[in-house]
Amino acid sequence: MIVAEATKTATGTSPIDQLHALVAADMEAVDGLIHERMGSAVALIPDLARHLVDSGGKRLRPLLTLAAARLCGYRGIEHVKLGAAIEFIHTATLLHDDVVDASALRRGKSTANMVWGNKPSILVGDFLFSRAFQLMVDAGSMRVLDILASASAIIAEGEVMQLKSANNLATTKSDYLEVVSAKTAALFAASAEAGATIAGAPSDLIGAMRDYGQNLGIAFQLIDDALDYSGRQAQMGKSVGDDFREAKVTLPVIIAYERADEEARRFWRRAIEVGPQQDADLKRAISYVEETGAIRETHARASHYVDEACLALAPLPDSELRESLIAVAEFCIGRGY
Amino acid sequence: MIVAEATKTATGTSPIDQLHALVAADMEAVDGLIHERMGSAVALIPDLARHLVDSGGKRLRPLLTLAAARLCGYRGIEHVKLGAAIEFIHTATLLHDDVVDASALRRGKSTANMVWGNKPSILVGDFLFSRAFQLMVDAGSMRVLDILASASAIIAEGEVMQLKSANNLATTKSDYLEVVSAKTAALFAASAEAGATIAGAPSDLIGAMRDYGQNLGIAFQLIDDALDYSGRQAQMGKSVGDDFREAKVTLPVIIAYERADEEARRFWRRAIEVGPQQDADLKRAISYVEETGAIRETHARASHYVDEACLALAPLPDSELRESLIAVAEFCIGRGY
Repeated sequence: MIVAEATKTATGTSPIDQLHALVAADMEAVDGLIHERMGSAVALIPDLARHLVDSGGKRLRPLLTLAAARLCGYRGIEHVKLGAAIEFIHTATLLHDDVVDASALRRGKSTANMVWGNKPSILVGDFLFSRAFQLMVDAGSMRVLDILASASAIIAEGEVMQLKSANNLATTKSDYLEVVSAKTAALFAASAEAGATIAGAPSDLIGAMRDYGQNLGIAFQLIDDALDYSGRQAQMGKSVGDDFREAKVTLPVIIAYERADEEARRFWRRAIEVGPQQDADLKRAISYVEETGAIRETHARASHYVDEACLALAPLPDSELRESLIAVAEFCIGRGY
Repeated sequence: MIVAEATKTATGTSPIDQLHALVAADMEAVDGLIHERMGSAVALIPDLARHLVDSGGKRLRPLLTLAAARLCGYRGIEHVKLGAAIEFIHTATLLHDDVVDASALRRGKSTANMVWGNKPSILVGDFLFSRAFQLMVDAGSMRVLDILASASAIIAEGEVMQLKSANNLATTKSDYLEVVSAKTAALFAASAEAGATIAGAPSDLIGAMRDYGQNLGIAFQLIDDALDYSGRQAQMGKSVGDDFREAKVTLPVIIAYERADEEARRFWRRAIEVGPQQDADLKRAISYVEETGAIRETHARASHYVDEACLALAPLPDSELRESLIAVAEFCIGRGY
């Protein structure tokens, strides 16, 4: 997940920074706990974990947990443990994803699998995943454990589904949305839901927070997938055209292929299904997704999910936090242009 | 972990079979739950999981959980969920281990990574790990969640430690025992402890069951590591000399190297630290571990841990189950000769 530094408000800070500021003390506690609990007598574990944990991720998921808890009137401190647990789950999935995708670059740095190799990346992912559950046990809510264990299973299902859609232009929009809902949105949803749940919020508010997270997560992934075909993305610390080179069939490709003439279809089949790709292919793919309006259409769909996310917040108390969550959702559409 | 079919008692069944028989109905319920909960709409997940789950593993860890619960007087049914959860954790670690070690054969079958590739093996491991926590949530004991989340973190630490000892003849016996305690014995200990805990046993009995599991786990791994240098192992469904080829520095190697003359030391340094290995190297390594008494010494140490395991059971009620657990521990020394 990439969050643009480029788009700032008039005050020079992004809506995500502003949300950070509203829960600054809680977030500082989350950061402290993350660094404390990724510790191990086996030095390679914190070394490798730190590489990713301190690489400038926005901690968006714990931010949702903290904001949801406070927005639901929580006055305790257990949400801090949940925030750290959720960042560990996210970090574990990134470590495993980068091995699965053989990625070389994340957040502008070499990936852990490139620096230390695949073996430690897999095992440190497993370690962080276990630590996440230890933190949840410390937080003491069986309901939250249920939410996050289920989300973790759904994420893994989404990742396996995604393997099937690689090299496969028969992937439908509905297949794609199912993958995105599982591999990305499930953890956004669970992050927000966990915050409301630890706060002891009534079930309608818990449901509202979950819906916000789910829709926000889908919108984020759609924008991410559009950015993979954008020249702007090089400046955002991710390898350009990663999805294309991995022959992932994301929404921009599905739409561009659907709208392609016979020549363009031959190109897509060769580049995505048959291979091998040639040097000029990425540039041509970018032209096609632009020309066919596939990027515009992907943005339009993301906008729809942002609207749904904002609507979901209606039952929550009118407050600075709620406004900030709305601004974060709207900001997600603007990032990267 | 390999359990020999070869060594049977006079009645034709092994002590493990006899323990199975004592908790047969519970174990059948565990098997049913395993097959139910590894299900997913994403067909590749149960296909891959079934490959390993149905490959003839002895379910030794869930067996410990069931036996510990019943031995502590448990009359409920939640221990069945814990047994399934523990088998999922074990299966997840096997899937990830086989990717990390690039293993080709397990329990006499091609490994999942060989059949489906590394990507699905990593992700299905993650899925089963998540399912394990869902099952523990269903069982409803926060204390058991704590035990198994901690054990999972320790297993991952042990696996990372083990990476450091590969290609490294400076690995000490104490380093080795630390790895074995973490990567193998921690889950044996947690399996037995979880059973006693769900039964609501007093803390001394919980501690006794944990100690039994911990010592049994160390003994099992010692025997496993000795078997890797045994001609008998081919018939047991594992690739012969796996540890040697992966340049793992296990106890037989540590002892053989310690007792080696200068020529043998040169051999070990080339084969384990420098590489590449040659065709005749495994045969030579097997000769060295035999000649130096390293295998005998490894067995003697395993016997010591079996004795400790049996002693640990002293506070448990005198019963058929307790006798059966003692017989299982003693049997572990005999397997494979």
